[in-house]
Amino acid sequence: MKYVYLFSEGNKDMRELLGGKGANLAEMINMGLPVPNGFTVTTEACNKYYTDNEIIADDIKKEILDNLTKLEEITGKKIGNAENPLLLSVRSGSPVSMPGMMDTILNLGLNDDVAKAIATSEDNMRFIYDSYRRLIMMYANVVKGVDKDEFETILLNRRRAKGIQTDLELTAEDMYELAIDFKKLYKKLVKSEFPQDIETQLIEAVTAVFRSWNNDRAKVYRQMNNISETLGTAVNVQEMVYGNLTDDSLTGVAFSRNPANGEDKLYGEFLEKAQGEDIVAGVRTPKSIEAMERDYPNIYSELKDISKLLEKHYKDMQDMEFTVEKGKLYMLQTRSGKRTPLAALNIAVSEVEEGLITKEEALMRVSPENISELLHPTFNEESVKKASVITKGLPASPGAVSGKIYFDVESVKEASNNNIPGILVRNETSAEDIEGMNKAVGVLTVRGGMTSHAAVVARGIGRCCVSGCENLVVDEENKYMMAGSKKYNEGDEISLDGTSGTVYEGVIETTDANLTDNFKKFLSWAKEVKKLKVKANADTPKDAKKALEFGAEGLGLCRTEHMFFEKDKIFAIRKMILARSQEERQSALNELLPMQQKDFEGLFMEMKDLPVIIRYLDPPLHEFLPKTSSEIDELAKYFKVSTEELEKEIADLKEVNPMMGHRGCRLAVTYPEIAIMQTTAIINAALKCLKKGIDVKPEIMIPLTTDLKEFNYLKELIDKTAEEIMTKHKIKVAYKVGTMIEVPRSAILANEIATKAEFFSFGTNDLTQMTFGLSRDDARFLNTYYEKGIFKNDPFKTIDKNGVGKLMIVASKLARQIKPEIELGICGEHGGDAESIKFCHKIGLNYVSCSPYRVPVAILAAAQASLEGR
Amino acid sequence: MKYVYLFSEGNKDMRELLGGKGANLAEMINMGLPVPNGFTVTTEACNKYYTDNEIIADDIKKEILDNLTKLEEITGKKIGNAENPLLLSVRSGSPVSMPGMMDTILNLGLNDDVAKAIATSEDNMRFIYDSYRRLIMMYANVVKGVDKDEFETILLNRRRAKGIQTDLELTAEDMYELAIDFKKLYKKLVKSEFPQDIETQLIEAVTAVFRSWNNDRAKVYRQMNNISETLGTAVNVQEMVYGNLTDDSLTGVAFSRNPANGEDKLYGEFLEKAQGEDIVAGVRTPKSIEAMERDYPNIYSELKDISKLLEKHYKDMQDMEFTVEKGKLYMLQTRSGKRTPLAALNIAVSEVEEGLITKEEALMRVSPENISELLHPTFNEESVKKASVITKGLPASPGAVSGKIYFDVESVKEASNNNIPGILVRNETSAEDIEGMNKAVGVLTVRGGMTSHAAVVARGIGRCCVSGCENLVVDEENKYMMAGSKKYNEGDEISLDGTSGTVYEGVIETTDANLTDNFKKFLSWAKEVKKLKVKANADTPKDAKKALEFGAEGLGLCRTEHMFFEKDKIFAIRKMILARSQEERQSALNELLPMQQKDFEGLFMEMKDLPVIIRYLDPPLHEFLPKTSSEIDELAKYFKVSTEELEKEIADLKEVNPMMGHRGCRLAVTYPEIAIMQTTAIINAALKCLKKGIDVKPEIMIPLTTDLKEFNYLKELIDKTAEEIMTKHKIKVAYKVGTMIEVPRSAILANEIATKAEFFSFGTNDLTQMTFGLSRDDARFLNTYYEKGIFKNDPFKTIDKNGVGKLMIVASKLARQIKPEIELGICGEHGGDAESIKFCHKIGLNYVSCSPYRVPVAILAAAQASLEGR
Repeated sequence: MKYVYLFSEGNKDMRELLGGKGANLAEMINMGLPVPNGFTVTTEACNKYYTDNEIIADDIKKEILDNLTKLEEITGKKIGNAENPLLLSVRSGSPVSMPGMMDTILNLGLNDDVAKAIATSEDNMRFIYDSYRRLIMMYANVVKGVDKDEFETILLNRRRAKGIQTDLELTAEDMYELAIDFKKLYKKLVKSEFPQDIETQLIEAVTAVFRSWNNDRAKVYRQMNNISETLGTAVNVQEMVYGNLTDDSLTGVAFSRNPANGEDKLYGEFLEKAQGEDIVAGVRTPKSIEAMERDYPNIYSELKDISKLLEKHYKDMQDMEFTVEKGKLYMLQTRSGKRTPLAALNIAVSEVEEGLITKEEALMRVSPENISELLHPTFNEESVKKASVITKGLPASPGAVSGKIYFDVESVKEASNNNIPGILVRNETSAEDIEGMNKAVGVLTVRGGMTSHAAVVARGIGRCCVSGCENLVVDEENKYMMAGSKKYNEGDEISLDGTSGTVYEGVIETTDANLTDNFKKFLSWAKEVKKLKVKANADTPKDAKKALEFGAEGLGLCRTEHMFFEKDKIFAIRKMILARSQEERQSALNELLPMQQKDFEGLFMEMKDLPVIIRYLDPPLHEFLPKTSSEIDELAKYFKVSTEELEKEIADLKEVNPMMGHRGCRLAVTYPEIAIMQTTAIINAALKCLKKGIDVKPEIMIPLTTDLKEFNYLKELIDKTAEEIMTKHKIKVAYKVGTMIEVPRSAILANEIATKAEFFSFGTNDLTQMTFGLSRDDARFLNTYYEKGIFKNDPFKTIDKNGVGKLMIVASKLARQIKPEIELGICGEHGGDAESIKFCHKIGLNYVSCSPYRVPVAILAAAQASLEGR
Repeated sequence: MKYVYLFSEGNKDMRELLGGKGANLAEMINMGLPVPNGFTVTTEACNKYYTDNEIIADDIKKEILDNLTKLEEITGKKIGNAENPLLLSVRSGSPVSMPGMMDTILNLGLNDDVAKAIATSEDNMRFIYDSYRRLIMMYANVVKGVDKDEFETILLNRRRAKGIQTDLELTAEDMYELAIDFKKLYKKLVKSEFPQDIETQLIEAVTAVFRSWNNDRAKVYRQMNNISETLGTAVNVQEMVYGNLTDDSLTGVAFSRNPANGEDKLYGEFLEKAQGEDIVAGVRTPKSIEAMERDYPNIYSELKDISKLLEKHYKDMQDMEFTVEKGKLYMLQTRSGKRTPLAALNIAVSEVEEGLITKEEALMRVSPENISELLHPTFNEESVKKASVITKGLPASPGAVSGKIYFDVESVKEASNNNIPGILVRNETSAEDIEGMNKAVGVLTVRGGMTSHAAVVARGIGRCCVSGCENLVVDEENKYMMAGSKKYNEGDEISLDGTSGTVYEGVIETTDANLTDNFKKFLSWAKEVKKLKVKANADTPKDAKKALEFGAEGLGLCRTEHMFFEKDKIFAIRKMILARSQEERQSALNELLPMQQKDFEGLFMEMKDLPVIIRYLDPPLHEFLPKTSSEIDELAKYFKVSTEELEKEIADLKEVNPMMGHRGCRLAVTYPEIAIMQTTAIINAALKCLKKGIDVKPEIMIPLTTDLKEFNYLKELIDKTAEEIMTKHKIKVAYKVGTMIEVPRSAILANEIATKAEFFSFGTNDLTQMTFGLSRDDARFLNTYYEKGIFKNDPFKTIDKNGVGKLMIVASKLARQIKPEIELGICGEHGGDAESIKFCHKIGLNYVSCSPYRVPVAILAAAQASLEGR
């Protein structure tokens, strides 16, 4: 078993073994790019470390040291050698990127002798003792688990004593003394001397990186991102290069294309006289890559060439780290770059057009959730004009959000739990803030550039972010921020424009996103590939229009009850519900009929010859009842009864478990006149459209069916009503009658119900509620289930394949046995969830239906499902 | 195809074809008993009548008339012949008895000529014109569908004109004139003459009987009694004999044993100078059979012999109709006799002891529901002593009930729907009252004997009934009754003792029934035969004791929440629910622990070495919360918060759909300390009993499990808690951990859950709710579903085999695949329902559990299931 690989022995396809960073370093070495040499200790070594009870086996230690010897040969340098010392970085690198989650140690290989030998000039002395004191602090912290605070205090005290602001002003002498002080503090805290033996340093550093695989924040990150616990991390041991060595040294990060919008132009930032960590930490605000083009044209040109080479090689946009030591460029990392949804889409489309990747590959490059984020609204232009600007920062992650400001993770989490949109405001973010960023609608930081922690994470999770607002003063402890003399306290409302970097006071209205040409092109590719039909849930012509724009192939769910909530209609429906006789009820329904018919006409006119599924009245009737006393009074007057009497009747309609009460088709069974009215409205509306030459396709959907007899009772009622109207008008409407499958019983009896139903729509919201015996409105306790690892996902977000999914499979099979051509689909929340859509594809449904804004998401998910199935 | 059978061509096994009455008349003829001769038109003729659009085909008409000729030959009489006329009765008789539901015509064969010819003496004249005018009225009513009222008015007017009280006082001349008047009225109402042609009379009468198969009350009766619509009725055409002919003529009904208590003694009543209909109608109160023994010893003796002969022949207690014409006994009907539950049991046991039937046959003779009624409570002796008697009537159907009085069916139905026990008070009942009797807790009538409509129906449906309270005056229209000068209005409370016939004022406390030796013997036979174990649901030692007395083989469900409703405990549990911290919650649980432990000790001590299934806390927590303001104040004081604050917290706990909310094992997952407390209480209690030498078998049941991980989380918690206690005490308790299967998901995933669960109990109440998506508390609308024939049975009473049952089968199979020895049972309402128990037997469950009072019912149902499966 081989546990250690020289970079020259690896390649990009070995990421499982060498980690992403190691595999790509190897690949770059073999491509002949300027990469400091080194070797990688494998993920298998990490896993063995854990199975061996957190001890590195002797044979692996030996293999590491053997490779160290080889590295000495390759570089011509020797560890611990005062003349020509080999200095090393030790970095983690797991198969799946977990940025900032694990530990790193730099400058390894320094000890008293080496430092002294190198400190031949003033410059060298300053540099080497700066490096040495950093090593001591990092080693104490990472290897020995000691807090950095006391080291930082020593540094601070020295600055104060000398009356200076930054470390750059410290002299070589200062650095030397700091190194001595750090060594003393190390001894005090660790209770042993800082190790002078370089091999000891190396083995301990590797151990520390292995250990950091299991630190708390890494575990949380893996849980959040569904990363397996068993992957392990590799450790990359690499010759140090110094971006902080001389005036012509620098360090930076670059993307081969713009990760915010996908523009094909080198993009990034750099810091002069700095080490890579300084950029990521966001301590100093770096310069943009344009400054490099101006100030270091040769380096810029070399970097740009390498960038293009790597992009072609990897067939994807690259995120690179580089360092320039004494004017020479070194590549330290390359990987597929994180990008905004907009960039993901634009890059995928342009890479297809450049011939770099196929359409199918492009479709797999953009996640359905990204598509959804592209439909993010932007601020309403008029409103923006009126809004007052607080400050401007960097456009770190796009979006337009308003919310209340919070200065710590806990508060933003609490706000989110109470459905209050929160904006997390921090001086800079770190790994500890990820959960809060996830719960916030937006993130605002004082420090940090476009590639700072805040920016990278926010883009990754699609959160709006403005970073680097350097003229804000944030007091995290006392929970306020100052913009000039203006103070904003916790809970104050602000708005962030993540595309421009502007921060506004108060809440700003938003408008919907427009679809770009690239977006349309991309969706058209997805449509060519997908098998599932994608329909939309829409109750108004406006929503139907939006759905069509987004590519819907019909309406999968029109909730007729939503049409009843307008002032006129709600009064009529209240009269209907509280009617004292069938006559009174009929008279109220007669009032509703023309209104409802007009609603349907509007939908049909919009959808033309596409199928429109109309669900009959579904919710418990008491949802429509008056709540305010003025509403009750109005109704009491109409019925000529006392308010008390009406209140009593309203109270009588209240149910213990309305979700399982008098709702769905149970309403139409008890009050058939409702179904008759709805059928009349549909058929009349359809006739009107037919006469205008529109080939309407209404499909009537019966909700909450539990039994064939129940379905039949209503189907016969519908057919009779429709027949009468059609006979009278001498035109046939090609309507269908189908049902929701939303209680377990109808899934189990799908073979019976399929004998009469022409289509099924799985109502997975209710089906999930009934299958779990879990009311969505009362599921607050599910948080405990996630925390305890009992449930992994919210079953209301992603279909519970094991339980609810099994019922869907059973129902589909039973139905198709009886009626192979029956159309099967789903409507409800799951119809817009990518994972659920893929499940629907897999079990052979014909369509999914979701809200108009999710239609493009569903189209892409359906396409991906189809590609994954190939 | 033969559509008509002479009695001599039939036998008792042909009831499908000849109907019950026809088959038994044939059997008696062939046994050589004195039966007026006749023939039967088959049920197939009836069904053909309906398929032929309600016309009797010519060939069937011919067959009827051919048999009429044969009957003339057999009897030596001729129809329409003035000298020796053959007079006929035409009666319905379906394969399943539907007493009083269909039509009958008597005295058929009379016309002007025949009547005139017979009227040779004063007596004959009175008799024959009485018969003739009855025929005319009955024919008008039954064949021509004319109301009887105007005929009755003519009769009434004549009585008034002559100043007499009863028809008996009318003279021969009166009868003659009445017959003439009736004929005139007939012509006026029917618009044609009363038919003088006897063959026409006969064919029309047969048609009328066929038609009456489908009258409304017959349809309702069939629906209520689950009788198939396709059986059809036969028609029995039989020579008339007259109980009203001479002074030594009489008519009566008799049971071969006492139908109230099963005593082996001829039982019945008779009316002198009357026709059979007069008894059933309850117009005159008849004499008891003892009077016959005294007044007509020869007839009594012959009847008694025939009764014994029939009982031996049919191997069952017989219900007979007989008529004595001029001193000669004729048998008109025999059939298996309806009996009270007590009689059913006693007869079955004594028939086994007499060697008449086997134990297995006996077990099939008593319905499980009968067994339940045997456990009816009786009035508390002390309370009865204090109660004031209103009146005394006949003990028509046993039971002891209190309720509010109502004088019409609608009111008693409405009361029942509002859970108000109602007593239906009527002068006499008729078929129209059946639904009201069904909804009442008891029935009280002024007229009618032990075999009146009221008595027969009440016994049949197990309703308490006192009949023949002749000194009550009931005004049905004005809704009151008078007992002497005392007036009782609608809604006043009375009590009925159906065993003694006493009627009391007000409500009287009841005490539980005692088990007779016959009862115990019968149950012991059932236990020998049954395969299913029968356990009980009991939460207190008192209930557990009752369950043991009734034969329970363990406790299948102890609902721990029921233990919490006592004053001390409810306060502690409220503290637990509203605790602000885990510490506060723990402290409340510490208070509950010793109380709960004592509860379990009591149960274990009672149940000894029988298994006791304890279900962990199940209902939504807010069910325990204080409701009155004084309770809230008390709790607010304890928590040192304001009442308003506490009220807000209580309101926060309220759920939209509590049935699917934070309940069941979800409570223990969020508050593990509850499960730890309950486990501690169980194990501690078990240890105490073990130390006393009792081999306790506690089984811990987790409610509302949806997922294996959820079950495991709790099982591990339980095992850990138990292990710690057992280690400390150095004794092992042989406890088990299982789960309810009450949400569809756990049924679908039974194979996963069975890997860890040691037993399953199907919680069919909840499983039914979730499978149908139907809240039991909100299922008022189901009445519409029954009315419209969409649902046949209440799925909460009898398991929905098609839906819920299918899930149970799936779950059982999945579980047994994984763990063949897993114990499967059900608890909840269905566990005490005979049909559901039979289903449980059929799908191979191991046990059912039901309330203590249903245990004997379940034992018998289980035995019957086992016998039916042989």
